Amino acid sequence: MIIRKIPSEGLSHYSYFISAAGIAAVVDPRRDCEAYLELARDLDVRITSIFETHRNEDYVIGSLELASRTGAAIYHGSQISFAYGNAVKEGDTFRLGPVELRIIETPGHTFESISIIVTDREVSDLPYAVLTGDAIFAGDTGRTDFFGIERRAEVSALLYESIWKKIIPLGDGTLVLPAHGAGSVCGSTISDHEVTTVGYEKQTNPYLSLSKDEFMEKKVNEHHYLPPYFAQMEQMNQEGAPVLSHLPDLRPYLVDELRDIRENSQVLDIRSPTSFAGGHIKGSLSLWKDGIPAFAGWFLSYDHPIILVDDFNCHLREVSRHLLRLGYDNLEGYLAGGFPAYFKSGSPLGQFESWSVHDLARERKNGDLFLLDVRDIANVRKYGMIPEAHHIYVGELPGKLGEVPMDRKVAVYCDAGFKGSLGASYLAGKGYLRLANVLGGMGAYLRAGYPIEHAQ
Amino acid sequence: MIIRKIPSEGLSHYSYFISAAGIAAVVDPRRDCEAYLELARDLDVRITSIFETHRNEDYVIGSLELASRTGAAIYHGSQISFAYGNAVKEGDTFRLGPVELRIIETPGHTFESISIIVTDREVSDLPYAVLTGDAIFAGDTGRTDFFGIERRAEVSALLYESIWKKIIPLGDGTLVLPAHGAGSVCGSTISDHEVTTVGYEKQTNPYLSLSKDEFMEKKVNEHHYLPPYFAQMEQMNQEGAPVLSHLPDLRPYLVDELRDIRENSQVLDIRSPTSFAGGHIKGSLSLWKDGIPAFAGWFLSYDHPIILVDDFNCHLREVSRHLLRLGYDNLEGYLAGGFPAYFKSGSPLGQFESWSVHDLARERKNGDLFLLDVRDIANVRKYGMIPEAHHIYVGELPGKLGEVPMDRKVAVYCDAGFKGSLGASYLAGKGYLRLANVLGGMGAYLRAGYPIEHAQ
Amino acid sequence: MIIRKIPSEGLSHYSYFISAAGIAAVVDPRRDCEAYLELARDLDVRITSIFETHRNEDYVIGSLELASRTGAAIYHGSQISFAYGNAVKEGDTFRLGPVELRIIETPGHTFESISIIVTDREVSDLPYAVLTGDAIFAGDTGRTDFFGIERRAEVSALLYESIWKKIIPLGDGTLVLPAHGAGSVCGSTISDHEVTTVGYEKQTNPYLSLSKDEFMEKKVNEHHYLPPYFAQMEQMNQEGAPVLSHLPDLRPYLVDELRDIRENSQVLDIRSPTSFAGGHIKGSLSLWKDGIPAFAGWFLSYDHPIILVDDFNCHLREVSRHLLRLGYDNLEGYLAGGFPAYFKSGSPLGQFESWSVHDLARERKNGDLFLLDVRDIANVRKYGMIPEAHHIYVGELPGKLGEVPMDRKVAVYCDAGFKGSLGASYLAGKGYLRLANVLGGMGAYLRAGYPIEHAQ
Amino acid sequence: MIIRKIPSEGLSHYSYFISAAGIAAVVDPRRDCEAYLELARDLDVRITSIFETHRNEDYVIGSLELASRTGAAIYHGSQISFAYGNAVKEGDTFRLGPVELRIIETPGHTFESISIIVTDREVSDLPYAVLTGDAIFAGDTGRTDFFGIERRAEVSALLYESIWKKIIPLGDGTLVLPAHGAGSVCGSTISDHEVTTVGYEKQTNPYLSLSKDEFMEKKVNEHHYLPPYFAQMEQMNQEGAPVLSHLPDLRPYLVDELRDIRENSQVLDIRSPTSFAGGHIKGSLSLWKDGIPAFAGWFLSYDHPIILVDDFNCHLREVSRHLLRLGYDNLEGYLAGGFPAYFKSGSPLGQFESWSVHDLARERKNGDLFLLDVRDIANVRKYGMIPEAHHIYVGELPGKLGEVPMDRKVAVYCDAGFKGSLGASYLAGKGYLRLANVLGGMGAYLRAGYPIEHAQ
Repeated sequence: MIIRKIPSEGLSHYSYFISAAGIAAVVDPRRDCEAYLELARDLDVRITSIFETHRNEDYVIGSLELASRTGAAIYHGSQISFAYGNAVKEGDTFRLGPVELRIIETPGHTFESISIIVTDREVSDLPYAVLTGDAIFAGDTGRTDFFGIERRAEVSALLYESIWKKIIPLGDGTLVLPAHGAGSVCGSTISDHEVTTVGYEKQTNPYLSLSKDEFMEKKVNEHHYLPPYFAQMEQMNQEGAPVLSHLPDLRPYLVDELRDIRENSQVLDIRSPTSFAGGHIKGSLSLWKDGIPAFAGWFLSYDHPIILVDDFNCHLREVSRHLLRLGYDNLEGYLAGGFPAYFKSGSPLGQFESWSVHDLARERKNGDLFLLDVRDIANVRKYGMIPEAHHIYVGELPGKLGEVPMDRKVAVYCDAGFKGSLGASYLAGKGYLRLANVLGGMGAYLRAGYPIEHAQ
Repeated sequence: MIIRKIPSEGLSHYSYFISAAGIAAVVDPRRDCEAYLELARDLDVRITSIFETHRNEDYVIGSLELASRTGAAIYHGSQISFAYGNAVKEGDTFRLGPVELRIIETPGHTFESISIIVTDREVSDLPYAVLTGDAIFAGDTGRTDFFGIERRAEVSALLYESIWKKIIPLGDGTLVLPAHGAGSVCGSTISDHEVTTVGYEKQTNPYLSLSKDEFMEKKVNEHHYLPPYFAQMEQMNQEGAPVLSHLPDLRPYLVDELRDIRENSQVLDIRSPTSFAGGHIKGSLSLWKDGIPAFAGWFLSYDHPIILVDDFNCHLREVSRHLLRLGYDNLEGYLAGGFPAYFKSGSPLGQFESWSVHDLARERKNGDLFLLDVRDIANVRKYGMIPEAHHIYVGELPGKLGEVPMDRKVAVYCDAGFKGSLGASYLAGKGYLRLANVLGGMGAYLRAGYPIEHAQ
Repeated sequence: MIIRKIPSEGLSHYSYFISAAGIAAVVDPRRDCEAYLELARDLDVRITSIFETHRNEDYVIGSLELASRTGAAIYHGSQISFAYGNAVKEGDTFRLGPVELRIIETPGHTFESISIIVTDREVSDLPYAVLTGDAIFAGDTGRTDFFGIERRAEVSALLYESIWKKIIPLGDGTLVLPAHGAGSVCGSTISDHEVTTVGYEKQTNPYLSLSKDEFMEKKVNEHHYLPPYFAQMEQMNQEGAPVLSHLPDLRPYLVDELRDIRENSQVLDIRSPTSFAGGHIKGSLSLWKDGIPAFAGWFLSYDHPIILVDDFNCHLREVSRHLLRLGYDNLEGYLAGGFPAYFKSGSPLGQFESWSVHDLARERKNGDLFLLDVRDIANVRKYGMIPEAHHIYVGELPGKLGEVPMDRKVAVYCDAGFKGSLGASYLAGKGYLRLANVLGGMGAYLRAGYPIEHAQ
Repeated sequence: MIIRKIPSEGLSHYSYFISAAGIAAVVDPRRDCEAYLELARDLDVRITSIFETHRNEDYVIGSLELASRTGAAIYHGSQISFAYGNAVKEGDTFRLGPVELRIIETPGHTFESISIIVTDREVSDLPYAVLTGDAIFAGDTGRTDFFGIERRAEVSALLYESIWKKIIPLGDGTLVLPAHGAGSVCGSTISDHEVTTVGYEKQTNPYLSLSKDEFMEKKVNEHHYLPPYFAQMEQMNQEGAPVLSHLPDLRPYLVDELRDIRENSQVLDIRSPTSFAGGHIKGSLSLWKDGIPAFAGWFLSYDHPIILVDDFNCHLREVSRHLLRLGYDNLEGYLAGGFPAYFKSGSPLGQFESWSVHDLARERKNGDLFLLDVRDIANVRKYGMIPEAHHIYVGELPGKLGEVPMDRKVAVYCDAGFKGSLGASYLAGKGYLRLANVLGGMGAYLRAGYPIEHAQ
C-alpha cells in the first residue's frame, strides 16, 4: 500500500493518493491534477475512484478534471445533492486489493462530510489510517460557521460527536490524515505537523481536552473570516467546475496593449511590497504570490480579465496554479517584460511610501496621520495594537472604506508588510493619494521594542 | 516542523529530513545526496546536522558526502569507533528551534544502534515521532545475525529490550519512522506501509506479540543472507567513503573498444531476461536494473571496471545511482548504442533458451535435464519446490558450482524469471553451454496449475 | 531575431519558431505543441501566426492545436482548399517588427507548397534565411511522386523551376532551413546537416548539379515508398485534425484485462528484437520505439485500440508522442508491469528464434529455409542481397504474404535486425510458426565477411 | 554531423558542441559544464577534445572542468603559453569520423586566436562552417584594444588580414559560428542573428565594407570598456581555473547571521530597482540578475564573501551560474527568506527615491540637484544627454567619486533604470544620503517627449 500526500501550497490543502494492487483512489484532488496522473504513471497504476470528503468552500475541487482524464468514479457524502458523482453512506466500503476504504459519516464542518478509514486486511483488521477531511486537523478542528450563527451550536455538537464517536475510537495508533495543514483558512490553530495520530491528537489537540459543552462554546465563539469567493467555490463544487485539461496559456501583453485594456481588467501585481511601493501601474492590486490563495478571493472578481505583473516573470506559472485552484478562469495574461517594461515606456507611475517601523514610530505622532491596522483579528488579539490605530481586516476594507478618511495621510500596517501593501494598493485604487505601507508591520515593530497597547 | 522521508528505491532504504526554525537534520543520508540539498534549497533552510542510526552494512552512507557540501556535523552511536564524526549517547539532545531530537541507544541490530525521538516542544512534551533505524520496521524487526551465530541470542535479547524498554513506552500515538521498507535485505517480513505507529505495530507486528524467549528463539533461528559486499560496506561506513561530488560520468564505449577491454572488465547487462536470453555479450552478467541493489553485491568485484549494457540506454543514470550507493566507484562506462550496436557489429552472440512454464512442464521429464532452483530459502519454504529440482540460492552459486553438472542441460528457475536469468548468465560465464531460464518461474508455474512438492 | 528549429525525432521533421519584437511565428508545428508554448513563455513573446509550408502527408500538422492555445492565425498555400486557415500567395508579407516573412510559391513537392523568405530589415534588405519546406533539403530535394506516375514529370519540372528561379537566386549566403532532416520518409539522401546555405547546396547537393532534363529524369525514376497512412494524414491535414490539449492519458492494463480485450486491439510491442524473440504476446507486433514514425503507418489501423508493451515501461511517453503525431488517437493503454508481468502470469508465450549472422551463414544452406529480405529497395541496391533470398519490403509484406511459404522455415533479415523483427512478428501473427530473425542483418553479415550477391 | 550552440545568457557567449561518429568536440566550453555532459549523454557520444579559440578575458573558460569530467584533451593557439592543454598551429586537423576540424590562425583580437573550419568529407571538400571565436561576429568584429593603445593599429591590421585572408575566402555559403552574440562586452554592434554566413556578413557587416585603412582607423578609434575583472579572467584562463564539480552550495543566512558577517562581506542585492529603492540593506549593491555578467566585474572583489539578497529567492541558481562563470568562487550564501525576512526583523532600512521620468523633468530645475548620467558612452553618443547632466560610466564610478558632490541631492539615470540603481546603490554605500534613481532612464525620458541635448 502506498499513501502519498499531495499538498497544495498556499491553500495548505492536502489531497491523498492511495494505491494498492494496481489501482488507486484519490481523495480531494485539486484542479491542476497532473500530480496525480504523474504519480499513477510512475507507479504504473490506474486511478479508479475519487473521493470528496466534503463540498469544499476554499478551492475548486478537481474531481471532474481528474475523472475526465482517468475515467474514475467520483464519490461524496449523501447529505447534500451534487450535480455529478455518486453518494456514499456510512459503512460503504471500497477495495484496492487487500486495502479497504470504509466510509464513515462525520458531519459538523458540513453536513455531508465524510471520513475514510483505511485498513490493510492483509496485515490486520485494525484501522491503519483515517482521512478526516475537515473534521479534525493536527492541533485544530474544522470550522463550524458555514450555516449561520443560529446553527453553530447544532453543527458544533455534530462535529463533537463525529470526532468522539467515529474517529477517536479508531485507536491511538491510527494515523490521522487531514485535508488541511498550517496556514489554511479552514482552521486557525492548525499545527505544522504534516501527519498525526489519534493518540497524539487526543493528548495534545486543545479541542480534544474539552467537554462537549466547552467544545461547543469554543466553536460557537470561534472567529473565522468568510471571503466572498467562498460562495463561488460552493457553487462550482456542487454543480461541477469546468474541465480545463491544462494550465492556462497566458497571453503576454505589451505595455501599449495593457494600457488599452485596463479599463475592463484587473491588474494583479505579484511583486514584493518594496517593489510595488517603489513604482506600480495605477489601479493595480498588490498581492504577493504566496498571499493569493488566502486573499485573492476577497478582491478579485470572476467577471473581468486578470492580468499579472511581476518583476521578472518568474512566478507566473505558480500564480496561474493558485488562481486556477480558486476558479479564476478569467486569468488572461501578463505584462511582457515585467514591470520594468512599464517604467521603460515612460508611462506615469503610481507610488506610495514604504516605511520602516522606525519611520512609523517617528511619524505616528503626526496629527495628520491615520494609522490603519489591517491584520486579522486573531493577530490583533494576540499582540495588541499600536496606540491610536484603527483596525479593519484587510479583506473587509472594500466594505468599510467609509471608515478611512480621504483627507489624511494613511499609513497601513499588518503583521509583516504584505497585507499592508495589499491594503494600501486597494486604497490607492480608490483614490487615496497619501499612503504609506509599514514594512515589517507589527512583528517588526514589536521586535524593535516599540510600545503597543493591548486591545481590550 | 517538516519531516520528509527520502526513499532509495531498490535498497528500500529510508532517510529522513527534519527541519524547523531554518535549520535541518538529515538522518541516514544516502551517498547521492542532491535530494537533501534540493530540499534544503526549496525550504530555504540549512542542513546543520547528520545522524547515522547505525553503521550500515547494505549501502554506503552519504554522511561525508553531505557534510562536504553543507558543513554539517555528523553524529553516530558511541559503541564502536568511527574514523569520522562525533559519538552521541543516551539522552543527548539536539534542537531545531522548538523541535528536540533526543538520542536513545537501541542496540540489537548493531551494538551502536541509536534511535531518535522527535518532540515538538511548542506543541507538547509528548514524543511526536521516533526514528528507529533498523531496530523496528513496519511488520518486522532488525536483523541480529551480524555477530556470528554464537552471539545471536545475546544481541536478540538486546534488541528485545531496546524495543520494549525504549520504543514501546513512547506511547501508541507516536509515529514510527524506520530506516527500511518492504524489500530491504535488512528484513524479511517488512510490510509495505511507509510509515507506522507504536500502537499499530504493538498490535500487528508479529514480533511484538512474542514473549522475550519466543522473540529470541525466533530471531536466533531467522535466516538471512549475507552478501559478500557487506564487508566492504562496513569498512567504508566505519572509515568513511570517498567524496564524489556528482554522479559518475559514464564513458560510452564503442563495440570495438568494449571488445578490447573485456578481459579486465565486468560487463553488466541490465536488460530484461527475454532480451538477455535472445542475445548477449559472452561473459556478461544478466542483472536487471531493479535487482542491482539486492544482487550486485553477490557478484561484482570492487576491483575491475564495470561496463553497462542496456537495450536503449535509458536506465544508465538509475543504475549509476544504485551502484554508487553500493560503493561501486569502479563503474566506468556503457556500451554506446546499446546492445543493438553489438549485434550490428556482427560479433558472435551468447544465447540461451527462454522457457515458458509450459515448456518447463514438458521438458522437465527429460532425464538429461538438471533443474536448478535459485530462489531464496524463504520463498522455497513458502511455496515448495518443483519435484527433482536442486536448490542453490542465486547469490551462493559462485561457491557451489560443484553442485551443478556441466554435462547436462541446466534449466534455472526462480520465483519470477529475473534471478533465473542472473543465475543462468553466471553459469554461461563459467562455461556451461546448454542453459535455459524459466520465464515467470515458480510464480507462473503455480499460477498455471502445475504440481509442486513441499520441501519438508 | 530568434530562429529556433524544433525537431521531431523519428519523423526527422523540423519546425521553426521565429520571433522578433515580442511576437512569433511558427512554421509547420507538430501536434504535441508544448515545445512552442514553452519557448514563447521563456522568451516572453506571443505566437501570432502559424505557417504551413505545404499539406503534409507524413504527420499530422499541429496548426489547429497550437492555434487553439494561442489564438494565432493559420496560413498555407492557395493551390488547394483547406477546411481551416487562410490562403497566402506569392509576395504576401508578414512582419515581426523589423523582420519580414515573405511568401514565395515553390510548387513541386505539392502544388500548394510555399517557402518563406526571412529578411531582417534592420540589418539589410538581403534575405537572411529561407524556409524551404519540402522543396529542398540538405543534400536532397522533395519527393515528386504524390500525384501519380503520369504527373511526375510535370511536378518535377515545377520543382526544378521553384528551386532555380525562387530559391537559388536568394544568394549563396542565405541560410536554408528545410522541413526535414536525415532519416525522413520525405527524402532519401538527406544529409545529417541540420542547417545549410544556398551556396553550400549549390555546390554539394547532387540534385543541383543536374540540368533540368537530368533532374526530371532522376526525379521521375526516383523510388519512394507510400505507406497507407499517408492517405489518413492528407485527409486530417486538409480537413483539420482533432484538438487534443494534452498527451494521451494511457490506461494501464493488468494482464487479465489485456487478455480480455485482445480480440479487438492492436498490441504494439516496443521492446528490442532480442526481447521480442525471447518471448512475446501472441499476435503482437514488434515495432521498436524509434521505428514507429517510419513503420507504424504500414501496419496499424486507425480503428482498433492500440495497447503498448514495453520491458520496463520507460518509453511510453516517447511512443505516445510518435503515435499522436501520426494521428493514432486510438492509442489507449499499455501493459502494467511491462512484459515481465505477462510472463509472470503463466500465460503461454510466443517466441521465435534470434540468429546471429553466423547462425544465418550456417543455416542458409538448409534446403527447407526460406530467406526473406525485408529491407527497403535503396538498401538492397546499395549492398546487394544474400544469395537465394527473396525480397519483400517490410511495409509491403501485408500485401505480398502469398509469396512467403507457410510450410518452410522462414528467416527474416533486414539491414540491422529491427525491421526483421517487425516482419517476423507480422508473419507470426499471420500464423507462420517456424520463424527466425537475423540480429544485425545485412550490415552485420557484410561486416562479418560473408559473401553476398549484387542484385543486377 | 551535429553542431549545437550552447549559449550562456548574459555573457552572450556561444560555445559549440560538434559531434560525429560517436565522438564530440566542444569549443570554448563554459565552466558550468553539465550542458555538454548532458548533450553527450543524450547523443550517446564521448567528448574527446576541447578547443579554446582564444584566451578569453570576459569569463572563466570551462576547459579544465570539462576535461576533468571526460578525459578530453584541450587545445588552444600557440602564440601564448598556457599552463595546461596543447598548442595547435595553422593547418592542424582533427577528425570526428568523416568530419574534419581544421585549425586556422586568425590573430587580431588576441595573438593566439584561432578559428576552426568544419568540413564534412563525406559530403564534400568544401568548408561547411567556420567557428570564428572573437574574430568576426554577426554584424561586428572582435575587439582590438587589449594590448594598449600603441599596438592597436598593429593588431587591427592582423585582424583585417585574418578576416580577409582566412575567413572570407571560405566562400559565401559557409556558415559562420562566432563566440559571442548580441549584448556581449566583446563587441558593440553584434546583431541578434544567432548564426550567419560568410556571404551575409560580406554584404551586411559594416566592418567588411571598409578598406584596410578604414578598418584600422575604425578599430583604433573604437571605444570599449575594460572592466577590472578582465585581469583576473586572463590569469585564470592562462593558468587554469579551479575545478568545481558542481554549482556552489549556497548557505542560507538568517538575518542575525547576516548582520554579524556584514563587515567582511559583499551583499549583492539582485532585486529590481523598484524593490531596492523601496528598502534595502545598507551597504548592499543593487545589481539585477541579468546585469551580473556585464557589471559584477566592475564592483565585486574576489576576496570577500558574496551574499545574495533576492525578493523570493527564485533567481539564486541563475545568479550562481553567472558568478561562477566570472570566477567568483567567493559566492557564499544568501539571505534566507529573502529581503522580506530583513524588514520583518525590524532592522533599519536603506532607501532612496525612485523617480519617474516625469518626476525627473519636474525636479531637474531644482538648483540643488546633481544629475548623474551613468550610461555607457555609446548610448550617450547615440541619444545625447539631458541638459546639465554630468556623465560618468557606471563602471567607472569607483574611480571618479570625486566628481560627485556629497552635499547635493544626486539623481542617477541610465538608459533604462537598472544601471542607475546600481550607481545609486554604490553611492549610498559610499555615504551619499540624498539619492534618487530614475526609473526608465533616458529611454523613457525620450519616449515621454522631454527635450535632450546632444553631446558635441
